[in-house]
Amino acid sequence: MIKPHTAPGTLELLPTEQIAFQRMLDVIRSGYERFGFLPIETPAYELTDVLLTKTGGETERQVYFVQSTGSLEKAAAQDDPALPELALRFDLTVPLARYVAEHEHQLTFPFRRYQMQRVYRGERPQRGRYREFYQCDIDIIGKDGLSPRHDAECPAVIHTIFTDLNIGAFTIQLNNRKLMRGVFEDLGITDTDQQVAVLREVDKLDKRGPDAVRETLVGDCYGLAADAVAALLTLVATRSTSHDDALAILDRVQRESAGSATLATGVAELREVLSVLRDLGVPESDYALNLSIARGLDYYTGTVYETTLDDHPEIGSVCSGGRYDDLAGQYTKSKLPGVGMSIGLTRLFWQLREAGIVGTAESTVQVLVPQLDEAHLPQCLALATDLRQGGINTEVVLDGGKLGKQLKYADRAGIRFVAIVGAQEVEAGTVTIKDLRRQDQFTVARDEVVPAVRVELAQPLDVSRD
Amino acid sequence: MIKPHTAPGTLELLPTEQIAFQRMLDVIRSGYERFGFLPIETPAYELTDVLLTKTGGETERQVYFVQSTGSLEKAAAQDDPALPELALRFDLTVPLARYVAEHEHQLTFPFRRYQMQRVYRGERPQRGRYREFYQCDIDIIGKDGLSPRHDAECPAVIHTIFTDLNIGAFTIQLNNRKLMRGVFEDLGITDTDQQVAVLREVDKLDKRGPDAVRETLVGDCYGLAADAVAALLTLVATRSTSHDDALAILDRVQRESAGSATLATGVAELREVLSVLRDLGVPESDYALNLSIARGLDYYTGTVYETTLDDHPEIGSVCSGGRYDDLAGQYTKSKLPGVGMSIGLTRLFWQLREAGIVGTAESTVQVLVPQLDEAHLPQCLALATDLRQGGINTEVVLDGGKLGKQLKYADRAGIRFVAIVGAQEVEAGTVTIKDLRRQDQFTVARDEVVPAVRVELAQPLDVSRD
Repeated sequence: MIKPHTAPGTLELLPTEQIAFQRMLDVIRSGYERFGFLPIETPAYELTDVLLTKTGGETERQVYFVQSTGSLEKAAAQDDPALPELALRFDLTVPLARYVAEHEHQLTFPFRRYQMQRVYRGERPQRGRYREFYQCDIDIIGKDGLSPRHDAECPAVIHTIFTDLNIGAFTIQLNNRKLMRGVFEDLGITDTDQQVAVLREVDKLDKRGPDAVRETLVGDCYGLAADAVAALLTLVATRSTSHDDALAILDRVQRESAGSATLATGVAELREVLSVLRDLGVPESDYALNLSIARGLDYYTGTVYETTLDDHPEIGSVCSGGRYDDLAGQYTKSKLPGVGMSIGLTRLFWQLREAGIVGTAESTVQVLVPQLDEAHLPQCLALATDLRQGGINTEVVLDGGKLGKQLKYADRAGIRFVAIVGAQEVEAGTVTIKDLRRQDQFTVARDEVVPAVRVELAQPLDVSRD
Repeated sequence: MIKPHTAPGTLELLPTEQIAFQRMLDVIRSGYERFGFLPIETPAYELTDVLLTKTGGETERQVYFVQSTGSLEKAAAQDDPALPELALRFDLTVPLARYVAEHEHQLTFPFRRYQMQRVYRGERPQRGRYREFYQCDIDIIGKDGLSPRHDAECPAVIHTIFTDLNIGAFTIQLNNRKLMRGVFEDLGITDTDQQVAVLREVDKLDKRGPDAVRETLVGDCYGLAADAVAALLTLVATRSTSHDDALAILDRVQRESAGSATLATGVAELREVLSVLRDLGVPESDYALNLSIARGLDYYTGTVYETTLDDHPEIGSVCSGGRYDDLAGQYTKSKLPGVGMSIGLTRLFWQLREAGIVGTAESTVQVLVPQLDEAHLPQCLALATDLRQGGINTEVVLDGGKLGKQLKYADRAGIRFVAIVGAQEVEAGTVTIKDLRRQDQFTVARDEVVPAVRVELAQPLDVSRD
């Protein structure tokens, strides 16, 4: 006998947890659609040549390759086999680039897509790090150009979603890579590679602390002037406390600039993003400038975002992204600038569960019809059919057993209502409804069951669960 | 530059097709939940040892193995490398068996689960055959026993789903492997392997025709008596035309039996399934006995199902399944009988599209707010926010351009409403709503836009699209 076991680094949920997870997926999907994003899905694997055009060493080492038996055998027979033909996607961005380039002439630009699928990375498994995990991405892809106004849409939809997820206060933090690059230009660091390297060091502020970062930057490797580093570290410590404060910070950064055009562009873009965010009605308490955000990758070129939960800073960013100049340069000559954000839902769910913020949900089953007497099974089945046709998720007990045990099952399974059809009810033409949450019960005429249960379901529960 | 291309044997959809596909997924999910099935998801890959316990040669040859770079390198260094540690699931049944066995003590039985995920088979790619495809499965798993009444629940939920999918008339066809085995016993074919072999031949009736099958069965390989074969072929040609006809057929089969107890059990089970199906309100026009259904696999032990579209017999079965004695014997000593059905949605979608039954859907975007004048962008954004907060999926044009072009975009994208805020509207405190489907327009006060659009969206469209 084989021990049944999931592969390491995967998160598998029990049904009640899966329902909670699915509700989060539904909130995200509904938010993305509310803001006019269109769904796409791509295959789990791509041709290796297509997937690995751009990637460096680390990503390639984390890629999972896919091979049929035939292809395995062929490889085994060769001394120096080529990489397998297929590989699992490690994010949704490369598949998006391939999708947009492949279907370019059938899409309308700006192309606003959302995609919620699993991705795969052969990372060392750690607590809360998964090898298979959901990403829920939105991106807006322009052709030749894309107004910075779109950079405000991503945080606006993320704001709606995190509000609807109801997992506590959060802040969407904004920065702009052009502003940062302009600051470097003003400091005399004009080499792009060095800018990226310094940004990487700055990005380690949270982990290493300002002293260690300062030491690195004035040290041999970078050799920056102490006052330049001091100015830089002051700048990256900047956080806005309100919309007007954010504008004031931008004014100050502009005023103090030695004249970098890149900085001026970054400031102007952030001003536009802030303005559209306010026009979209996003409350100023929920977004802020944070001039420390660089986003590890040198991929982003303009606006960058991170999102943190106010009461759980230890979780780190739960939704990040940014603006990039060209999505699919490796596949097409068309210039496709874009902006996007991504929620890593598997990790977020795990973290929220660890922090006790999400637990198991109520069952998707809303009503259980128990079986008191086999003789009344036809009445039970007819009742279940009426409830289902009324849009109410209903389970019928087909195997029978003691009523107490059936009620206990409903309670433990998180099913709120039990609709009882016993001898008494059949004779009287009624149904007894038990509300297991409210510990309450009432009797209703048989032909009024559906509206009655609907009314109950529509009322918010006072009694909290979990 | 790399040519952007999906891997062979995958189906990738444009957004409007993806919306149509997603609507089908939503109908299926909602049907499964209506009948009290709980969601689970499992990882795309399983440990190879766990996945390949039961399978024969063909399945194993179709399995896709998964390997990280490190594991590839290790294998390349060995003369006779073991199979890779991980493999992609080829169906949802083996992962279900592993799931139920792994989490057995945390589940309640009967365990009613649905699962809608992609599976992977390294088949030779053919028109309409995919290597990656969605399966949408329901199963009910009992512990030690499971009433045949559950065998009626699967076709009842499938009936609801195919009705809601609105893809034309369909028939859910039923048979029972015990009835068939009993018939063999009555004919003197008592060896189980030979029964399975004969059932396999009978299963080829559609492809080979009765004459070829008759010839095989009376031939050297099987050596059956000509009148036994004639009786068998008459039996398997039996189809019921109504509920009462189905019962009459069962009476006749029972009456004509030479006394097989297995046959009597099969007949009794089918009677119970038919009775519960009727009690659940499934119309008798939509189900039938079809005594030819054997379902290739020797996996099934009781009720078996196939579902065909009445107007498209060429498509074959679009939803199949059956009853099995023991789900997870390879992983647990517990006896776990079950019954289930599966919709292969990727193939079904492709077939329906080929047959012109489904096409592209209306956009998920319900309202487009065009941009007439940049000066009114704040009003456009505020309107979009109100619509979105009212639950209406809304896109705002942020880049501007000519109104005619923006309207054309909405029309081509399948967006039904356009909500215009121009200088006139801003001054009058109104919004002009264009209904692109009805070719109609009206003006409404700014603060009545949301209820007005809601009313419009709630009204069924007379004008058909596509």
